[in-house]
Amino acid sequence: MALKGRDLVTIDDLTNGEIEAIFKLADSMADSMPGQYGLCRGKVMASLFFEPSTRTRLSFETAMHRLGGRVISVSDPKSTSLAKGESIADMARIVAGYADIIVIRHPWEGAARLVADYADVPVINAGDGGHQHPTQTLCDLYTLIKERGSIHGLKIALWGDLKYGRTTHSLIFALAKFGATIVFCPSRGLEVPENILHKLVTEYGGELERFGGREKKVKSGALQVDAVYMTPGKPHQLAMMPGIDFEVELKAGVDALYVTRPQKERFTGEEQPDNEFPVVDKKMMRGKQFSKTLVMHPLPRVDELAYDLDADPRAMYFKQASRGVPVRMALLALTLGVKEFPVIEEPSPVRTDYLMYERDYGVKCNNPRCVTAQESEKKYLKPGFKIVNREPLTLRCVYCEHGTEPKFIASTEWHEGRVEHKKYHRANSHLVKKIRPENLIAFDSEKEAEEHGYKPGYYAKAKEK
Amino acid sequence: MALKGRDLVTIDDLTNGEIEAIFKLADSMADSMPGQYGLCRGKVMASLFFEPSTRTRLSFETAMHRLGGRVISVSDPKSTSLAKGESIADMARIVAGYADIIVIRHPWEGAARLVADYADVPVINAGDGGHQHPTQTLCDLYTLIKERGSIHGLKIALWGDLKYGRTTHSLIFALAKFGATIVFCPSRGLEVPENILHKLVTEYGGELERFGGREKKVKSGALQVDAVYMTPGKPHQLAMMPGIDFEVELKAGVDALYVTRPQKERFTGEEQPDNEFPVVDKKMMRGKQFSKTLVMHPLPRVDELAYDLDADPRAMYFKQASRGVPVRMALLALTLGVKEFPVIEEPSPVRTDYLMYERDYGVKCNNPRCVTAQESEKKYLKPGFKIVNREPLTLRCVYCEHGTEPKFIASTEWHEGRVEHKKYHRANSHLVKKIRPENLIAFDSEKEAEEHGYKPGYYAKAKEK
Amino acid sequence: MALKGRDLVTIDDLTNGEIEAIFKLADSMADSMPGQYGLCRGKVMASLFFEPSTRTRLSFETAMHRLGGRVISVSDPKSTSLAKGESIADMARIVAGYADIIVIRHPWEGAARLVADYADVPVINAGDGGHQHPTQTLCDLYTLIKERGSIHGLKIALWGDLKYGRTTHSLIFALAKFGATIVFCPSRGLEVPENILHKLVTEYGGELERFGGREKKVKSGALQVDAVYMTPGKPHQLAMMPGIDFEVELKAGVDALYVTRPQKERFTGEEQPDNEFPVVDKKMMRGKQFSKTLVMHPLPRVDELAYDLDADPRAMYFKQASRGVPVRMALLALTLGVKEFPVIEEPSPVRTDYLMYERDYGVKCNNPRCVTAQESEKKYLKPGFKIVNREPLTLRCVYCEHGTEPKFIASTEWHEGRVEHKKYHRANSHLVKKIRPENLIAFDSEKEAEEHGYKPGYYAKAKEK
Repeated sequence: MALKGRDLVTIDDLTNGEIEAIFKLADSMADSMPGQYGLCRGKVMASLFFEPSTRTRLSFETAMHRLGGRVISVSDPKSTSLAKGESIADMARIVAGYADIIVIRHPWEGAARLVADYADVPVINAGDGGHQHPTQTLCDLYTLIKERGSIHGLKIALWGDLKYGRTTHSLIFALAKFGATIVFCPSRGLEVPENILHKLVTEYGGELERFGGREKKVKSGALQVDAVYMTPGKPHQLAMMPGIDFEVELKAGVDALYVTRPQKERFTGEEQPDNEFPVVDKKMMRGKQFSKTLVMHPLPRVDELAYDLDADPRAMYFKQASRGVPVRMALLALTLGVKEFPVIEEPSPVRTDYLMYERDYGVKCNNPRCVTAQESEKKYLKPGFKIVNREPLTLRCVYCEHGTEPKFIASTEWHEGRVEHKKYHRANSHLVKKIRPENLIAFDSEKEAEEHGYKPGYYAKAKEK
Repeated sequence: MALKGRDLVTIDDLTNGEIEAIFKLADSMADSMPGQYGLCRGKVMASLFFEPSTRTRLSFETAMHRLGGRVISVSDPKSTSLAKGESIADMARIVAGYADIIVIRHPWEGAARLVADYADVPVINAGDGGHQHPTQTLCDLYTLIKERGSIHGLKIALWGDLKYGRTTHSLIFALAKFGATIVFCPSRGLEVPENILHKLVTEYGGELERFGGREKKVKSGALQVDAVYMTPGKPHQLAMMPGIDFEVELKAGVDALYVTRPQKERFTGEEQPDNEFPVVDKKMMRGKQFSKTLVMHPLPRVDELAYDLDADPRAMYFKQASRGVPVRMALLALTLGVKEFPVIEEPSPVRTDYLMYERDYGVKCNNPRCVTAQESEKKYLKPGFKIVNREPLTLRCVYCEHGTEPKFIASTEWHEGRVEHKKYHRANSHLVKKIRPENLIAFDSEKEAEEHGYKPGYYAKAKEK
Repeated sequence: MALKGRDLVTIDDLTNGEIEAIFKLADSMADSMPGQYGLCRGKVMASLFFEPSTRTRLSFETAMHRLGGRVISVSDPKSTSLAKGESIADMARIVAGYADIIVIRHPWEGAARLVADYADVPVINAGDGGHQHPTQTLCDLYTLIKERGSIHGLKIALWGDLKYGRTTHSLIFALAKFGATIVFCPSRGLEVPENILHKLVTEYGGELERFGGREKKVKSGALQVDAVYMTPGKPHQLAMMPGIDFEVELKAGVDALYVTRPQKERFTGEEQPDNEFPVVDKKMMRGKQFSKTLVMHPLPRVDELAYDLDADPRAMYFKQASRGVPVRMALLALTLGVKEFPVIEEPSPVRTDYLMYERDYGVKCNNPRCVTAQESEKKYLKPGFKIVNREPLTLRCVYCEHGTEPKFIASTEWHEGRVEHKKYHRANSHLVKKIRPENLIAFDSEKEAEEHGYKPGYYAKAKEK
């Protein structure tokens, strides 16, 4: 199987067939735990956790121990050389000289990508800021498949903090890949970020129905739906009759309610959900639409999920957690190459492949939590983007995947008699279409453009759109 | 042996025969350390330390490694999901999904009981606040038996901070169980808590002679004795001639002096022992009464035990510590069921079994360090008590074992024509004897009683006693 | 091989032959990593890190795991009993009761020596304050030998913070032992401490050429040389023509440039190198004199070593780090006695052996970072010194190796009719030579001498020199 030596940074790094192969191996491992001991004899896993964690760190470490491997561990960022100002790239190269595989959690978005770039051993993202948490997503998918047989066609409601909950960000793409319908039920002010919805629609090809602001939310029992995503294969008429048919469909219930806690440690002060963060409890789950709904949660919970559901057969969250061990065992064994497993790949929707934008100067990722925005990393790290849209010009950071819309553009070459070399223009002028991607230069400000020797062009000042 | 799968939360969880079986297995393990490697092959121990520790954590982890098992470890509370507000119950269920056995240290009293309630793997208490530390007690008993052959009939002086020193709290009950005489020599203001003395007398059936306040302390050489406990089998006349005969007996010396440090991290400000915390040193130990006295200490020490005793053959404290490894190996092997050992049980004094008091509302444990008093735990945790006394009505928390005396009582049923349903009364009225335990409701305040629909009864206001 | 059971506290603890034997074993281990697993089966290494570390801790732990041994680990000083005020001696004795070998990093200078004194298992110093870091030095030497075949006759420039960089302190002595020429290029205010230069010259017997203050520094391209050390065997004329010939020699380049970061965590405020700490980068390394120069760094780096050198074949720093694993594996295996290796010892320069000075009272080590100066250690720890010089009287602390010059002296005996018993004199009087070392008493102050019953002698006040 082709997983040997590969990184798992975002859930996109795995095909559906590969994910299913991991699950089948997890099944067989769960059935004979003692038989797995020794598979990773002599292998060393580095478990680098630069944010608080119990579940994920202990789950990975348990998985490695159950395979008979060894673990070196960092659980306190203050105890490491990062406290002395060391860069992530250096740390990655050093640890790759010790361990056979690296598991990394970090508060900066894109940090796992960065570690993967510099480490010459496989790297698994155990959560990078608000970006992704792909192995949690594997546990979520595994639970859905164990409980429902297949994910295709399921209706999954995502509930709570969809803005900062990295577990939901990974899950959204995975659900789309497997053909589930996603019902977005965010808490007020904690809606899914635009860059994720944009990626979902443009790359996964399905249809997103947005019910506008808070006023227009579709209500169906306890569910206040902000948006719905349906995969391409799904025939539906939502675009015609917004809200209406869907309300009917929702009355039939959802297959799973995926609850998340408010990620207060990432709040910037703009969110005010404290008083109104809704609680999922036994009373709410009495609704007929929830009679067969699995209650899922990546845990830890705070107040958003009541303890009175714990003994309910629909409560899946402790199962999700304990299933993390066989799933991670399978992933580690396959990635380390100590185990092989056949992958049966069904044709999956072709995903868009974007052109790259890379320059030493000019536009930078405007996400303050992006790894490229940090002092210790800036000194060696060159921003990198995918050009995901032309109008408006949108660059998606290859590290944190946030979208940035640069204000000014220029070209390294003269184009079609119109775009002058060494002149800069507004990014929203029509010239954006005239510049070939490989010649594109983007700037955050006029000042920056001028510092690099560019002069204002005809379309620099005028607002065209 | 019946230890497989069982929890060790307080020293009461083990019978004398079980303790002796652990020691015999420890003996044989200490004799052939390399032979033990592999016994716990493939087993995982979770080592969860939410308070500073070197000795206990490293001792448990070493024990598991010497058995060939694996360890997942939390040594810094700030690095875990508890920092995100996770409850102990959730943590317990999650970790039980990973590990085969859990070792837990926590600052909240009763936390280990709580973990044991929610985890479906064996749980070992490695210290819960000022409550208990049963495996330290095992090391202490093991040392006494190794050095003196038997504990029965020994005179053991407990010295220092007997208020907050959880190691002494566990030790007191163990010494009573094994028939030792306990000589209490607390530092001023750091006397043994009443709930412990109460449990000692009521459940272990011996005789406690208290020498009143500081003025009346019995002095015998360096020993200033606050109280003495003798097991039932021991014939003595202390009650007749307080202090006098006992002074004579003390002149013959004590078998062990168990020194403890001031547990300043638990001081609330009422204690003022700083300047007068006595020091055990070579000079003091020159006294004839100490000529054969073992000097014990659970360590770490601060200033209460001088370094000049370290080379003295009576100094046992480093032996206590190093013996922790084989004792904990034996305990782990038996609890995990990888080893069996015959238990020879001698009839032990029958201990009182109390009736339970459990209600969703009403009286709460009034120990602020109790796990039931914490915000994160309150939301799911129902207080539970043993009714250990009727006059005054005393409820002992099943978690932290502190005694609470509720102020008001009521009954769920009409009793003997006198106790009216839906009326509340003072707990110190004679009615307390009229209410059957299964009907008893206790309140901390009138306000609370009234909030639950009870009205003041005839004996609500009047002070009867 | 005689390494079994021995401590490694300073690089002096190993002979050249032993170091070379470690490297040969490291070579053979690196060639067949999987074959080493199991060598340390059942052995436990305690990894005690009381200062931040990634590299060294994870490197040692990886080494032990690759050998199949087990690890107990402290990575956060706040999580240990030292936080409760426990002394290093107690910690050492306790942990020695658990583990088969101890690896210790500590901020106090001399701490590793202290642990070695009290632990009855082998102790390896993984860095003690600004004192030494001998296993880093092993990695450095190993890299030099791997890249250049031999260290004898190499010219090694030490660059950066030579005051607080403990790695350079260990390295200096090792380079001298192996016959390298050392070129000191410290940042301003961060020159090598005098006690190290003194030890170098008096014990290693070579010649030190000092170019005075900043004004007189010898410049050769980018190198600003503060001093040069040459081993005894090396014929040269530096003393005759200071600076001149050496500049010529430097134009031929250096074999390695050993860069260190400013150890800001140890700065006391007197240093002001922030703005002028020089950066080693591609541009600087373009100089002809560096064409074959290995760029070394113990890492972590901050800003003193540019990332643009990372891909340069002369960059050795990541190799240094990854070579730490086989070197530490060899060291652990030999020290634990699970492996033997023949030592071929060439006659090495005979090192001076000094007389000891030990008294319960009188002079103390004046290094505030010395382990003997700490409150928790003072209560049991007796200072110990080597008498390394008579004029001026200089005592070198056996823990931190700092030199102290006591102000006053006395004698326990009457000497030659001149030195009166019970009188004290200035240490710089001629009497210092009249007192036999075994009778010498040294005081920091007159007050101290008088407190111990000594009266001012004839040479107490007069300044003789």
